[in-house]
Amino acid sequence: MAMMDIPLNTWLLFGHAPRYFPDTEVVTRFADGRMHRYTYADFARRAQQLMHALDVLGLGAGERVATLAWNSYRHLEAYWAVPCAGRVLHTLNLRLSPDDLTYIIRHAEDRAILVDPDLLPLLEKVHALGGLTGVRHLVVLGDTVPDTKLPGAVGYEDLIAAQPGDYAPRDIPERTPLGLCYTSGTTGRPKGVVYTHRSTVLHALAASSQAAMAIGPGDRVLAVVPMFHANAWGVPYTATPYGAKQVFSSGPLDPAALVELMSAERVTVAAGVPTIWMSVADEIAARGGLPDLRHLLCGGARPPRALIERYRRDFGIPLIQVWGMTETSPLASLAWPKERMRDWDEQRITEAVRIRAGLPLPGVQMEIRGEAGQPLEWDGTSMGELLIRGPWIADSYLGGQGAAQFTDDGWFRTGDIAVGSPDGYLVIADRAKDLIKSGGEWISSVDMESAVMALPEVAEAAVIAVPDDKWQERPLICIAVQPGAEVTLERVRQHLEKSGFAYWQLPDRIEVMDTVPRTGVGKFDKKTLRDRFGA
Amino acid sequence: MAMMDIPLNTWLLFGHAPRYFPDTEVVTRFADGRMHRYTYADFARRAQQLMHALDVLGLGAGERVATLAWNSYRHLEAYWAVPCAGRVLHTLNLRLSPDDLTYIIRHAEDRAILVDPDLLPLLEKVHALGGLTGVRHLVVLGDTVPDTKLPGAVGYEDLIAAQPGDYAPRDIPERTPLGLCYTSGTTGRPKGVVYTHRSTVLHALAASSQAAMAIGPGDRVLAVVPMFHANAWGVPYTATPYGAKQVFSSGPLDPAALVELMSAERVTVAAGVPTIWMSVADEIAARGGLPDLRHLLCGGARPPRALIERYRRDFGIPLIQVWGMTETSPLASLAWPKERMRDWDEQRITEAVRIRAGLPLPGVQMEIRGEAGQPLEWDGTSMGELLIRGPWIADSYLGGQGAAQFTDDGWFRTGDIAVGSPDGYLVIADRAKDLIKSGGEWISSVDMESAVMALPEVAEAAVIAVPDDKWQERPLICIAVQPGAEVTLERVRQHLEKSGFAYWQLPDRIEVMDTVPRTGVGKFDKKTLRDRFGA
Repeated sequence: MAMMDIPLNTWLLFGHAPRYFPDTEVVTRFADGRMHRYTYADFARRAQQLMHALDVLGLGAGERVATLAWNSYRHLEAYWAVPCAGRVLHTLNLRLSPDDLTYIIRHAEDRAILVDPDLLPLLEKVHALGGLTGVRHLVVLGDTVPDTKLPGAVGYEDLIAAQPGDYAPRDIPERTPLGLCYTSGTTGRPKGVVYTHRSTVLHALAASSQAAMAIGPGDRVLAVVPMFHANAWGVPYTATPYGAKQVFSSGPLDPAALVELMSAERVTVAAGVPTIWMSVADEIAARGGLPDLRHLLCGGARPPRALIERYRRDFGIPLIQVWGMTETSPLASLAWPKERMRDWDEQRITEAVRIRAGLPLPGVQMEIRGEAGQPLEWDGTSMGELLIRGPWIADSYLGGQGAAQFTDDGWFRTGDIAVGSPDGYLVIADRAKDLIKSGGEWISSVDMESAVMALPEVAEAAVIAVPDDKWQERPLICIAVQPGAEVTLERVRQHLEKSGFAYWQLPDRIEVMDTVPRTGVGKFDKKTLRDRFGA
Repeated sequence: MAMMDIPLNTWLLFGHAPRYFPDTEVVTRFADGRMHRYTYADFARRAQQLMHALDVLGLGAGERVATLAWNSYRHLEAYWAVPCAGRVLHTLNLRLSPDDLTYIIRHAEDRAILVDPDLLPLLEKVHALGGLTGVRHLVVLGDTVPDTKLPGAVGYEDLIAAQPGDYAPRDIPERTPLGLCYTSGTTGRPKGVVYTHRSTVLHALAASSQAAMAIGPGDRVLAVVPMFHANAWGVPYTATPYGAKQVFSSGPLDPAALVELMSAERVTVAAGVPTIWMSVADEIAARGGLPDLRHLLCGGARPPRALIERYRRDFGIPLIQVWGMTETSPLASLAWPKERMRDWDEQRITEAVRIRAGLPLPGVQMEIRGEAGQPLEWDGTSMGELLIRGPWIADSYLGGQGAAQFTDDGWFRTGDIAVGSPDGYLVIADRAKDLIKSGGEWISSVDMESAVMALPEVAEAAVIAVPDDKWQERPLICIAVQPGAEVTLERVRQHLEKSGFAYWQLPDRIEVMDTVPRTGVGKFDKKTLRDRFGA
């Protein structure tokens, strides 16, 4: 005996917000403009009511309770109540097709689904495909239950209203499953990642670090990243116990409304994918900046350099790259500057830090391995697959799928091609499947996209490989131009050459379109682009 | 299977500094003014040499390796090498008497001692008392071995020189003991607290939080708190993997040299007891402030309000209270403001936050219990004993001593008398044994000291209880005045009355002295004062 043997479970953290931050607010803006605000004392009471309700519904220990929902205070209640009550929270991606949802709900053996009212039509389609045969409870996350073809739907408020607001803490062993999230695989069916109480508590402790999201009681945090996407990067499990005010924007993205919300609630830290920060930049400019904002966390894809520079130059806001995956809980590395860079000018910091994927968080180990599996030096040039291990990294997918992504010696193969810099910063060159192999050399699609998006007339750019008889593959750039603007292949080639691309890397072809299609998690949908243009 | 089952041990963190922060510096200033600086790459190589050396010495797994040393880069190497090599680091308090050291070294069954050259005379006294009969290896932490009566002392540099700089990571189960530190108990013999790999890794993750020490790769950290005192508050286990530059001041405190070091190395975060920050304030003022310093961590005792106000007003530096004990690893609560206080003026923040002991860290649970053991409300008035539990809190002392401090329901009794504020901030009223019980009411010695130290003519003040036939106990104030100043009982009484103390609380007696005596860890030595004046 030495130190207390206390399990790392959600109960270790749940009591903090109501006890030490009873008056701190949770604010939700709904798509129709309606605002909801309450305190962590309210949150904790309602979350405990929900725990009782799950018991009353007769759900067994470890059974899956799914959410099909936007970000909101009710979703936050489910994030905590479901695992605290010994069930597993399964966040369904509302951007997936009814077919994929049907597969996932059945594969996960979901027994209850909490669904937002406006997503009932989507769930009806799933029902029509037989996706709900194993689901025993449908709970609508609203004040009332709309007309629906779904049988037996009950209202969330009705469900919890009669329940008491206190619930005796459960003694949950730390390796008990807590949550489930499917990755939108580009090959094969989606695969399920199971988070445990232990992994989630460790991730929450790591996430509040000055080296990670830097969230404390002085912060007001807006996770633009959806709660159905990799635990909203851990924000709900971090901001709640650390007593940060939480701000949710519910429903599809409306740039003007989002910036208005950030301004009105004086958000200090926000997290989202690069396309979010691209889409709201003009709105922030129109307001003359967001003075309360300390930093933006930007992940899911590499932000274009021009975007990083614009936020820093025009708004004084550092855009901190985050790298992670559904399989990594997700925080694995973040691009904070080092102490010896304090006197560097911003351009130098951008090049050394901000355009990179970050410094690995303590607790996470990384290796870059060559094609023969040998570890590569972090020398700034050796390129290989990134492997990762740590106590909040998946060791398998639900049901044993995708076993090839886990090595015999205990590492997860990320499928990302990376270079390690000598000073410890990770550079993600590309997804392995997005790299363009041309004439025996590699071209990074991400590098090329970042460069092309620096052109003022370009709104978005996605680079894919197209087959080529002579060179094996050649890059093709899919471009969405700014309203009223035009762009030519010659202009793009000249710009890329000036940006340092070699002559043999320059594209022979561009395709101009209104918008670049996106996946369910908001990334460029290269699979669709390859289908359309790859022939 | 779900998430990787990777043990929380020092190997999870050790590789970070050399890999991702190879060029970041560790700087040591020795008492004679000599400076030593090297990088984390150097640190890691030498730490691994020390791991091999421990193997070569033939120390068994789990055997205790003690240090009797000031803060330095060699002490940092021992902090990591001893547990990574599967032994237990026992930090000896060099301010203890030879008699206490003899008891502790024997009780801990120390098998090796790493000792600073200037502390050899102290160790010779221990030897004369028979304290080293079980110690097989003496290693002098210097470039050479001075003349000493101690047999068989070897030099640290000689010990590690021939060893290789890489060491294969050990697979250490997370509940394995890692460290040992004795508390300087005021009753009975010192008691040993055993830290585990798990508790230390969890504490390191928690400590870098924005809600805790807020240490990241952009920081330069100076732990003024000794490395023989509660893990230097966890700084060595946090700053190293998080890549903060570390600055050590080796040897006894020299205020001018310390401030010179902080300025020259551009320290951003520093940690120490209130008396340190009192003693260096004039030096900081003489320099016109320390512009790189973001915040000071202040714990071990409650800092006087006047000190907090001076640092904020004159230097723009927030002094963040830290509360913890050897038994709590030690970080348990820190006094950061909440988000809704962002617009408050400094006086209001000082009253609501800075003069309090802080918000409990996520992972730590606290209860304030009444005399019948019942939990008290955090209502701002109910006063009782503070109890604490969590995965980095001790569940026992080495050898089962002091069992009464651990409750049957799994809590550690801190011996501190506390009040919880309704908004979640902990207020430590006093040590239970230092409270003054006068006429059936309680007087907080800490409150009275803080008020008296606001008088400009007072340098230090310690309040003790003296027996009184009529009132049971009465306060007596021991005062060290500023050079050339004088103070009278009447002046003190008037000031306390203006500060809000009730008439019956005012002291009937003061004692003026040159300096207030201190304990081995730098706190006011009330035991000595009670012996001298209590009769």
